[in-house]
Amino acid sequence: MTAPVTPGFSFRTEASDGHARVGRFTTPHFDVETPTFMPVGTQGSVKGLSPAEVESTGAQIVLGNTYHLWLRPGPELIAKLGGLHGFTKWPRAMLTDSGGFQAFSLAQEGPRTAATAGKFNAGAKISEEGVVFRSHLDGSRHAMTPETSMLVQGQLGADVSMQLDECTPLSDEKVRDRAALEGAVARTTRWAKRCLDVWNRDYRHQQKALFGIVQGGTFVDLRIAHAEELAALDFDGLALGGFSVGEPIPMMYEALAEVAHRLDAERPRYLMGVGTPLDLLEGVEHGVDLFDCVLPTRNARNGQALTRFGTVNIKQARFREDPRPLDEACGCACCAGGYARAYLRHLFVAGEMLVLRLLSIHNLWTYGALMREARAAIREGRYAAFKRSWIEGWNRGVE
Amino acid sequence: MTAPVTPGFSFRTEASDGHARVGRFTTPHFDVETPTFMPVGTQGSVKGLSPAEVESTGAQIVLGNTYHLWLRPGPELIAKLGGLHGFTKWPRAMLTDSGGFQAFSLAQEGPRTAATAGKFNAGAKISEEGVVFRSHLDGSRHAMTPETSMLVQGQLGADVSMQLDECTPLSDEKVRDRAALEGAVARTTRWAKRCLDVWNRDYRHQQKALFGIVQGGTFVDLRIAHAEELAALDFDGLALGGFSVGEPIPMMYEALAEVAHRLDAERPRYLMGVGTPLDLLEGVEHGVDLFDCVLPTRNARNGQALTRFGTVNIKQARFREDPRPLDEACGCACCAGGYARAYLRHLFVAGEMLVLRLLSIHNLWTYGALMREARAAIREGRYAAFKRSWIEGWNRGVE
Repeated sequence: MTAPVTPGFSFRTEASDGHARVGRFTTPHFDVETPTFMPVGTQGSVKGLSPAEVESTGAQIVLGNTYHLWLRPGPELIAKLGGLHGFTKWPRAMLTDSGGFQAFSLAQEGPRTAATAGKFNAGAKISEEGVVFRSHLDGSRHAMTPETSMLVQGQLGADVSMQLDECTPLSDEKVRDRAALEGAVARTTRWAKRCLDVWNRDYRHQQKALFGIVQGGTFVDLRIAHAEELAALDFDGLALGGFSVGEPIPMMYEALAEVAHRLDAERPRYLMGVGTPLDLLEGVEHGVDLFDCVLPTRNARNGQALTRFGTVNIKQARFREDPRPLDEACGCACCAGGYARAYLRHLFVAGEMLVLRLLSIHNLWTYGALMREARAAIREGRYAAFKRSWIEGWNRGVE
Repeated sequence: MTAPVTPGFSFRTEASDGHARVGRFTTPHFDVETPTFMPVGTQGSVKGLSPAEVESTGAQIVLGNTYHLWLRPGPELIAKLGGLHGFTKWPRAMLTDSGGFQAFSLAQEGPRTAATAGKFNAGAKISEEGVVFRSHLDGSRHAMTPETSMLVQGQLGADVSMQLDECTPLSDEKVRDRAALEGAVARTTRWAKRCLDVWNRDYRHQQKALFGIVQGGTFVDLRIAHAEELAALDFDGLALGGFSVGEPIPMMYEALAEVAHRLDAERPRYLMGVGTPLDLLEGVEHGVDLFDCVLPTRNARNGQALTRFGTVNIKQARFREDPRPLDEACGCACCAGGYARAYLRHLFVAGEMLVLRLLSIHNLWTYGALMREARAAIREGRYAAFKRSWIEGWNRGVE
C-alpha cells in the first residue's frame, strides 16, 4: 500500500474515532480538511453562486463535470484560459469526474424520445474500448475512452482527476446481478491501467493527482477485492463509485459499513455522488473523507431548504407571513442576513432568481457545517453521539 | 417655492456647472448623493442580485414597483415584515412609484390576448376616480385611485413615495395630441391634491416623503406651467413623468433642455423611467438629480453588457476565446474579479444563472460610475467636456 504518489500531494490522518477520521489532504496549491463535501459546478459554475459564496459555505474543493465541459465549451478553450481554476476563478482545490457517468446516463443514441429520456444508459454503447454516445446537446457522436477521459481532464487541469470506470446502474432487480458487476469491476481495473499509462506519461509531472474507482455494487467481497486491486496501483486516492445508483439505501449502508474502512487508510477515500446529510453521516462513520452531490444545490432550485431540522419546501403556505429566517442559529448569508421565510417564499412564488441563490447558499452551508461539526466530533472522540444527535434534529422537523 | 417639507428631509445643492448640479438628498435615515441612478427592484429584489451587490455598484437608492408589490405579496404582508426595508434587507434609501404606470401598461381587461399583449394601456379604464384594471397575474379586478396608491405606498414604507399621475403614452402620432396631454396634466394636478390629503393626514408625520409628477408630454409650455402648479404644493420633490414613453428621443431631449432646470431648484428633480447612459448625461446636463430604469438589469438578462465603450452582446462568437474581462479598467465584481469574456459567453450559452448576475452587476456599475464621474465633473466645472468625452467612448465600440 502506498500513500499519494503524485509530487506535492499528501494525505495525513490527524484524528480518528472508530473508523471515522479527520484528515488533511494536501495538494500542491491547496489544503483540504476531511471529511469534506464538494459542491458540484457542473458547467464551470456552482449554479447561481459566485466562487466567494461557495467558499463562504465552508466548501474547500469543488467538482467539475468532465462530460459537460468536454461538450461545451471544450477542454482546449478551458486550457487556454488557464484551466478550470483560471476559467471559473474558484480559488481552492478542484476535482473533475471522468465524464463516464454522464456519458452513460445523459447521452442518447440519436435524438431523445419519450422512451429514452431520462433513462440511465439509454443508447450509450459500452465496449472494452470505452463508451460511444451522442451528445445530449446536439446529437453529435463522441467516444469516451480511458485515454480521452485523461486527455480531457488533463486539459481541464483540476487538482484531482478520476479514472474512467464502468458504472452499472442498480435497481431492485439488477442489484443482485453479480455477473454484470463482476464484469464492470474487471473492466474498471483494465481501464484503470490504461488511465494510469496516460497519466504517468503526460500529467503526473504537472502535479495533478489521479484517483481510482472501486466498483462492485453491494457485493462486499467484490468491493473489497477491487479495492485491494486498485490500491496496488499508482492512484493518489480511491473512490467508491456505483453507489446511490438505484439500490435500496439500507443495502448501500450495509456495504459501506463493510467496505469503506477497508480502502487503503493512507489515501483519501471518496464516496462519489452521495448524498443526503444522513448518507454523509453514515459515510463518515465508516471512514469516508470526500463526498459530492448535486442534491443541496438542485433541491434549492426546486425550493427545498435543507436545515438542521430536516427539509422544508419554502413554497408552503405556512411560511406566508413567517418573519423568521430558515434557521435562527444558522450562520449562512441567507439566515444570518435576516431574510424572512415570508420573503424567501415571496421570491420563489414570484420567480425571482435571488431565492435560488439564497437557498443554495443555505443548503451548502448546512453541508459545510455538518462536515465541520463532524470533524470536531471526531477529534473529540464523540462522533457516535454527534451522529445520533444530528439525526434526531433532522427528524424533528422544521417548526 | 419651498424646500422638502417632510420632517427629516432636506436637499442641498453642493456644486453646479451650468444647469447640472451636485446635491445631497438627506432622508431621516439615509443620504443620497445626486445626480444618482436608482436600480429597479420590481418585486422586492433587483433581479438576481443581493443587496450588498447592488450597493457595491454605487447605488444609494433603489426603486420598488408598487403595482407588483401590491398584487404580490401584498402591502399588508410587507408592512408586517417591517416595510420594504425589513422585507428586502436593502440597507439604503428606497423609493416606490405610484403603481399607475404599470396599472396602465401591464394590466389587461380580461385575459391577455395576442391583440392586447404588451399594449400600453390595453384594457385599463381610466376615469377621474382612478384606474380600474385586471391583474396581469390572475385577472382579478383592482381599482388604483390616488387614495389607494397612497395607502399601498404608505404600507410599503419606502423613504420616498410618488403621487398617482396620469401618464399618456406618446408615439409619432400621439405626441402632438395636445388636448390629451392637457387633460392628463389637469387630472394629475387634481390627483396630486387628493394624494397630498391622504399623505398629510396619515404618512407625513412618519417621516415619509412624497414627490409630485409633472406631465405635459413634449409641450414645453404645458410642462413648465404644470411644474409651477405642483411646486406650489407640499411635495418634497418633483418628477418628470411621461418621458421615454414612445416619443422620438430628440423631442425628449429638446423638452428636457427647456423644462428640467425650471423645476424648483430647492427640491430634488427626478426623471422617471429614463434611460440609456446618453439619456442620463442629457438629463444631468439640464439639472436632473434622480433617474431610474430597468434597462441595465433587463438588458443584462438578455446578454447585453453596457460598457464605457458602448453595448455588446456577450453571446457573440468573437468572444469565444477572449481572455479579457469586459472592460479592463472597470472596477465591478465581474471585471475586477477577472472573469473572461470567454467564460461569460460560455455561461450565457450554457444557460448558467451566474452570468445574469455578473452582467447585471457590471451594467449597474457602469451606471453608478457614470453618476459618480458626473458628480466629480460638475464639482470641477468640466461637465460639458466630461459629457463629450463619455459619448465619444460610448460611440467608440467595444474592441
